[in-house]
Amino acid sequence: TQQQLSEPSAEASRAQPCKVTTADRSVRKGIMAHSLEDLHVKVRDTLMLADKPFFLVLEEDGTTVETEEYFQSLADDTVFMVLHKGQKWQPPSEQSTRYQL
Amino acid sequence: TQQQLSEPSAEASRAQPCKVTTADRSVRKGIMAHSLEDLHVKVRDTLMLADKPFFLVLEEDGTTVETEEYFQSLADDTVFMVLHKGQKWQPPSEQSTRYQL
Repeated sequence: TQQQLSEPSAEASRAQPCKVTTADRSVRKGIMAHSLEDLHVKVRDTLMLADKPFFLVLEEDGTTVETEEYFQSLADDTVFMVLHKGQKWQPPSEQSTRYQL
Repeated sequence: TQQQLSEPSAEASRAQPCKVTTADRSVRKGIMAHSLEDLHVKVRDTLMLADKPFFLVLEEDGTTVETEEYFQSLADDTVFMVLHKGQKWQPPSEQSTRYQL
């Protein structure tokens, strides 16, 4: 997936609290990000992903977040899921019973 | 289906967060759109549809969204499904169990 990271000027905007989880929902971390690009950098550092490519989707429904514009529209404390190539978003119910509704 | 895209002046209005999925619901992307026309352009780019004609329906019930007016009435984060000629909307339950409620 090609990442459409734009508007570096958004870097100057208010930092947004984000929550980041892995595909298996075993990890969940709070990260402040000024932009989608900033979130990518911090996710890479925090989860120690080195050079492994990844993309971010919404944990609730698997929506891919590729643009700065869309990232800016998201509410505080939105939960992002980190997916690597070949990994697919799955609803919580199909995994463990950890996040039962 | 002929697309009735009108009112380019709507471009100036607030961008609306939309979610876009494919007929098989295998892809779901977040897109900001100022108008229905803008959404069409961005869907074409994001899903790399080239010149392949398509139309947009509501993911929840297959309602075709053809007019700018109707698009503007939709809530933030409405989920749109991209359909090509010959493709039909199907409820989630007839596909996989991926989006169970």
